[in-house]
Amino acid sequence: MTSETTPVALAPGHDEHLTAAIESAGGVLVSLADAQVLVWAGGVDDFPTDLPDAVEWVALKLAGIEEFMAAGLIDDRRTWTNASGFYAENVAEHALALLLAGPRQIPAAVTSRWDKQVIDTTIRSLHGSTVAIIGAGGIARSLIPRLVACGAEVIAVNRSGRRVDGARETLPADRVAEVWPRCDHVVLAAPSTAETRHLIDASVLAALPDHAWIVNVARGTLIDQAALLRAVRAGEIAGAALDVTDPEPPGPDDPLFDEPRIIVTPHVANPASGLTRTLAPWVAENLRRFRAGEELLSTVSPDSTY
Amino acid sequence: MTSETTPVALAPGHDEHLTAAIESAGGVLVSLADAQVLVWAGGVDDFPTDLPDAVEWVALKLAGIEEFMAAGLIDDRRTWTNASGFYAENVAEHALALLLAGPRQIPAAVTSRWDKQVIDTTIRSLHGSTVAIIGAGGIARSLIPRLVACGAEVIAVNRSGRRVDGARETLPADRVAEVWPRCDHVVLAAPSTAETRHLIDASVLAALPDHAWIVNVARGTLIDQAALLRAVRAGEIAGAALDVTDPEPPGPDDPLFDEPRIIVTPHVANPASGLTRTLAPWVAENLRRFRAGEELLSTVSPDSTY
Repeated sequence: MTSETTPVALAPGHDEHLTAAIESAGGVLVSLADAQVLVWAGGVDDFPTDLPDAVEWVALKLAGIEEFMAAGLIDDRRTWTNASGFYAENVAEHALALLLAGPRQIPAAVTSRWDKQVIDTTIRSLHGSTVAIIGAGGIARSLIPRLVACGAEVIAVNRSGRRVDGARETLPADRVAEVWPRCDHVVLAAPSTAETRHLIDASVLAALPDHAWIVNVARGTLIDQAALLRAVRAGEIAGAALDVTDPEPPGPDDPLFDEPRIIVTPHVANPASGLTRTLAPWVAENLRRFRAGEELLSTVSPDSTY
Repeated sequence: MTSETTPVALAPGHDEHLTAAIESAGGVLVSLADAQVLVWAGGVDDFPTDLPDAVEWVALKLAGIEEFMAAGLIDDRRTWTNASGFYAENVAEHALALLLAGPRQIPAAVTSRWDKQVIDTTIRSLHGSTVAIIGAGGIARSLIPRLVACGAEVIAVNRSGRRVDGARETLPADRVAEVWPRCDHVVLAAPSTAETRHLIDASVLAALPDHAWIVNVARGTLIDQAALLRAVRAGEIAGAALDVTDPEPPGPDDPLFDEPRIIVTPHVANPASGLTRTLAPWVAENLRRFRAGEELLSTVSPDSTY
């Protein structure tokens, strides 16, 4: 093939941001049958079952690709990229927003219509606190400088325990139990795996200080939600701010919605409506790398520990 | 006097944090009649009218001292300190909490019980935005590094226009009108003066972009509240997050409480319940300076432009 452009299929549907990014980086839009690259802007359900062998790289729009893994779609016959790192700034910002809204009682203040007595005595500052971040990937790397600028210290927990920049200390996942009594708040930013399922259970909730807030911007399954509701109602922790739930979405009568010390946002840390605009420059950069024969950003493989 | 301790009156009432601070820095608690220093932990109403001449320094607990100024209490016969700089970290944190809670739709998300469609399409990221801070004192100095860590840029406005560290640019107050169309959001951190009264009026609200949020952690009088309500209802701006109101407190039926895009917290940016704990190390430091003959922190004078 002597063409100077790279044939890229963009599916499903059209998207102005991704189209512009692909064309700006030397790609030309073609049908899947003629493609060397597939930029897949959809989910797992309508992913093409007959992916041509000529497709050398599949760029997924998703950050969490458990379903692609579970369906066995991620193969080793081509390169796969996901987008987890590309959305990290936005997710980190939402985590910070929740970690401030909870201890600083923002929703409670709005609901209580100037109940100064109650809000004034329950508000807590993030400044001077210790925040545990469970799962120290891209979200943590974006979140840590924000927390440090707010005067908080961070204990990072990752698989290896390898030092995370900006954290006061880093612990390996098998020592996570040491973290609970030593932190003021917890941010969950770990992938959903068999090991992280119900990471936050009754015993963890009992070990946390009673002023602790738990922020979840990862996956709902990381928390035993029934145990969480019991612990919040019993005052074992101060509250929880959840951008993800289990099940998701919650039913309209889910008791989460009726507990004033649980803040629920509808999985918008990385808003779907702005997704392709955020993703576009990264797709362009990876396409540039692909054409230059360089290593791609955010690759995943069948062995990835998601 | 040969005593090695400095006689300090602490009034009104007792306070464990301030007592410990005073004693740790070489002070000894005495009655006002015997005091060289008065640490005044109250407001203006019960301030002693017969302040002995022997009192060389009055340390006020308050950040905003308009009422002391108006009452003519701040004289030039002794040194006066207020506490505005000492609470700046806490107030800056609250400003950031409000600036995230608004654009990221936290209270709206809680109220709407997982209305993903609406929240997802109205949420905005602070990352990449430009925030105007009006009044570039201690609160701004604490807020700017937080905003920069969040990927926002700052236009600072102060009286002189003298460059504020960390701000992309600084404008003098007489050029503030240039800021409105060029910023995404506004944080009010200016003192309450005749010039700042109704700084935010109908014309400013019309000049701001329609996605703008206004955060007020200063004084309610800086905003023409009737104009604000009209502008928010008309969609001229996205919303307002107010820790201070005019009048304050608002009446129980104040329309502020019924406008979903106005967030009201009950003047808790610097919670009264934690005040003396926050203040104590600063009182200790100033007492150390006083005893050493050094310049005190956070002095105010009858000429201060508060």
